[in-house]
Parts: sequence; structure tokens; C-alpha cells
Amino acid sequence: MLVIKIGGGETINLAGIACDLASVETPKVIVHGANALRDELARRMGVEKRVLTSVSGYDSVFSDAELIDVMLMAYAGVRNKRLVELFQRNGVNAVGLTGLDGALVRAVRNKGIRVREGSKTLIKRDLSGKPVAINRKLLGLLLDNGYTPVVTMPLIDERNVAVNSENDDMVALMSAVLGAEVVVHLIEAPGFLDDENDPDSVVARIPRAELKRREDAARGRMKRKLLAISRIVTSGSTKVVIADGRTESPVADVLAGKGTLIG
Amino acid sequence: MLVIKIGGGETINLAGIACDLASVETPKVIVHGANALRDELARRMGVEKRVLTSVSGYDSVFSDAELIDVMLMAYAGVRNKRLVELFQRNGVNAVGLTGLDGALVRAVRNKGIRVREGSKTLIKRDLSGKPVAINRKLLGLLLDNGYTPVVTMPLIDERNVAVNSENDDMVALMSAVLGAEVVVHLIEAPGFLDDENDPDSVVARIPRAELKRREDAARGRMKRKLLAISRIVTSGSTKVVIADGRTESPVADVLAGKGTLIG
Repeated sequence: MLVIKIGGGETINLAGIACDLASVETPKVIVHGANALRDELARRMGVEKRVLTSVSGYDSVFSDAELIDVMLMAYAGVRNKRLVELFQRNGVNAVGLTGLDGALVRAVRNKGIRVREGSKTLIKRDLSGKPVAINRKLLGLLLDNGYTPVVTMPLIDERNVAVNSENDDMVALMSAVLGAEVVVHLIEAPGFLDDENDPDSVVARIPRAELKRREDAARGRMKRKLLAISRIVTSGSTKVVIADGRTESPVADVLAGKGTLIG
Repeated sequence: MLVIKIGGGETINLAGIACDLASVETPKVIVHGANALRDELARRMGVEKRVLTSVSGYDSVFSDAELIDVMLMAYAGVRNKRLVELFQRNGVNAVGLTGLDGALVRAVRNKGIRVREGSKTLIKRDLSGKPVAINRKLLGLLLDNGYTPVVTMPLIDERNVAVNSENDDMVALMSAVLGAEVVVHLIEAPGFLDDENDPDSVVARIPRAELKRREDAARGRMKRKLLAISRIVTSGSTKVVIADGRTESPVADVLAGKGTLIG
């Protein structure tokens, strides 16, 4: 089992990924983002996006009902269905789903994000949560019948409300539940960079023991990503690869050993 | 088997429909529109909507790639997933799909619409098509495992391209393929009106023999709807009901005999 996370950056080569995956016969689940598209749609529609930084240093988008609607447009609408269309065109029988469909990914709603405002620490509660359970039966039903699930946000919380979450956390849970051998993160960089400003500083391998140090040193989204990845590699025998989603053949490049191998 | 088409008008009571359907135990497939939402999003995003009237008098939206994107936002994104969320909240295990997913609804691309411009007749070709095949196996897989498919535009054409189509044509094909006993159209009117401007003129029953006359007399979307419905009732034993989607309990009202029974 292969889990492939396609980042939501603007320059990811979706057509190249779909073309590559047509010749990968291993059963696979695709998870994708659409953050650049979400931001573009929010801007065009005049919807304000608020990013909160928690006291522990992680960035999160503050998700109200209007932002969930914009997410539904970008993630569940345009990106998910255009990806399904691309996969179908390449002979991959894709079925696009969110965490809501068949309650595929159940989340527990976040109690709130502790943020600092001036000298005060406040709790801000939004429509976000942490994935806690996967409807493995539904995924199995699709996989066993030759379909490739293409999964994205939002998730469904304990009260059946659509909530935002971190795709990377969903990827971590999904790879554990499915017993994935390999998890590939396709991002807008050649892999994990020793110096985030130097694209030539790709780290070929991060051993398990070194992961905590790398996570502590990282910032922003990469910090979150490494945190989610550390849950995958510490809990099983899954290999994780962070690789470039912008090349002509992103998946073929991973198979050829490019990117950063973690674990 | 029950097929329920939920119209895409602004005043349709989606929450009431979802609540009602929780107590309908017959296996069901939901098809929905989102035309009011699509128009609103198109306006907010500055995307122009063009409506063409064919020489034979039927109106169609001219679908270019940008309009398909807006459809993906409105139909596949917001409306489909908010409906799935509503159904989940009412205990109906809904899975939202477009015609693209698992190639659920295959279409044949339209050759073009014959329109009159001044004294000339022109052919305008867009991204639209007619549904010709349903992936019955995928619907069966979901229905047999307790899921309620919630299906919407776009469809997938013979070259695996996303195309717009008439939801009512998809409903007609789907009800034939599934052997539906009843097809319910929930619209923004109390049923089929003898006088389209008089909401008190609901026709309680249109016998099969009278349908052609009604279709000839109707205009705009109702003309198209009756054409699609006539295909259902002339090909089998399916009953069709056109009823009000705006009441407190739209489906309960249908079960109580309200609306227009056709066939």
C-alpha cells in the first residue's frame, strides 16, 4: 500500500503525477491539498483568511463557516475533481472523497488554539479538529474493486460538522490504519533542505533518531509536516519520502531515489 | 429504489429534506443541482454566464472551462459536501460523487448547439454532453453497503473530460438503470402548475397520454424537465412526482400525496 500526499502549492505538476501513477500498480490512496487555490479563491471572493500562531509556535488557519465553504470550493470542488479527471484520463479509476463522505475521516473538534495577543494568552476556537478514525471499510471497498481513493479536507467531527484539519495528520493516521509501506509527500522543494533557502542542500536521509532535532529546528509548515511524519516513522515500519512535486515526473523521480528518505 | 432530485434553487429546504429522508428506509440515490449557488459564485468571482437558446427553443448554459470550474465549486464543492454533512447529521450515511468519480456517469459530448444570431444559424460547441451510461456497479457497491449516493454534475465524456449536462437527463438515465419505482423532483413550486404564474393551479396528475401536450405548452426549464420526465414514464413503470422542495417537510408531503403525479 502506497499513500501519496500531493501538496497544495501552485507549482505542483499534477499532470505529471497522474501520468506517473498510471504505471504504479501498487494499491494507492492519494491525499491532496489545495492551499494556494484556496487562498486565490478567498482573495477573489473577498473572504479574509486569518492565520493564528499558537503559543507553542505552530501556524494554523482560523476556520470559520465561510472559510470552510471556500475550502469546499477549492479542495473538494476544483482540485479534487480536476485531479480525478486527470487520473481518469491516465487510466487510473479515481474516486474523489472528503472526510465527510461516508464519514471517511472522523475528527475530534479542537478545544481551541492558545494564542498570544499582546501580553495576554487567549483561547480561539474554530471549526478545526484532529483526525482520530478512518472508515477503513469504505476505503477497502473501493480499493478491492479497483478504485483509487483521492481524499481531501474537510473532515467530519464528533457532531457531524465539517472541520478543517492538517492534511499531514490525516496522512499519518491513514498510513497507520492501512499499514502503508511507503508514504510520499510531494512538495514545492527538492526534498527536506538543510538550509531552507538553499535548494541544493537536500538531505538524502534523515534517520529516525535525528528527526526530533530536525523538527525542533524547522519552522512553519515544515515543522508541522515533520511532526506528523515523526508519528508515522516511530509507530511502524513505514518509510516516508519527501520529494519534489514540481519536476516532469515527480513519482518516477521518487522511485529513482530522489528526495529525502525518512526513517 | 427511490431517486430524489433536489433542485438547485435558493429556497429549497435542504435541512427539511435531509431530516425527512432519515426515516425513509427504501434504498435511495440523491441527485442535486446548485444553479442559484453557481450563479452567485460566478457573480462574486466576475465569471460571465452565457445562456444560449437553441433553434428548437431549449435554453442551455454555455459551458467553458472556467464555468466548469465554477460548477465544481458550487455543485461538487459547497452544495454536494454541505448536503453530505446534513445527511450525516441526520444519520444518513451519504457519499457525495460527481459523474467523474469512478466514471460514474459517462456522457457523449455535444456536437454543438444550433443557435440563431440575427439572420444566421451558427453551431456553438461547449463542454457539455448527454449522459449515456451509469457505473451501476459502483452505485450498487455503495447501496449494498448502506451508503446513500449523493450525485451531481459534472459528467465525464468519452475523452475523460469534465462536461456539463442536464441533471434531469442524468436522473432519467439513472432511474432507468436502477429500475427506480419512484422519482421525486423537488422544485421551487408546489408542483406542475397549469398556469405558471398561479401557485394555486397545481395539476394533481398528468397521465402519460397528456404529457406531450404539457411539454409543448411549457417553457424554459420546465419544458426541459418534462422532456426528461417523459423519457422516464414512457419507458417503464416508474412513477414521477414533481413537488415542493420549499416546505417544512418536502419528502413527507410527497408521501402524503402532495405535488403532481406523472404517469
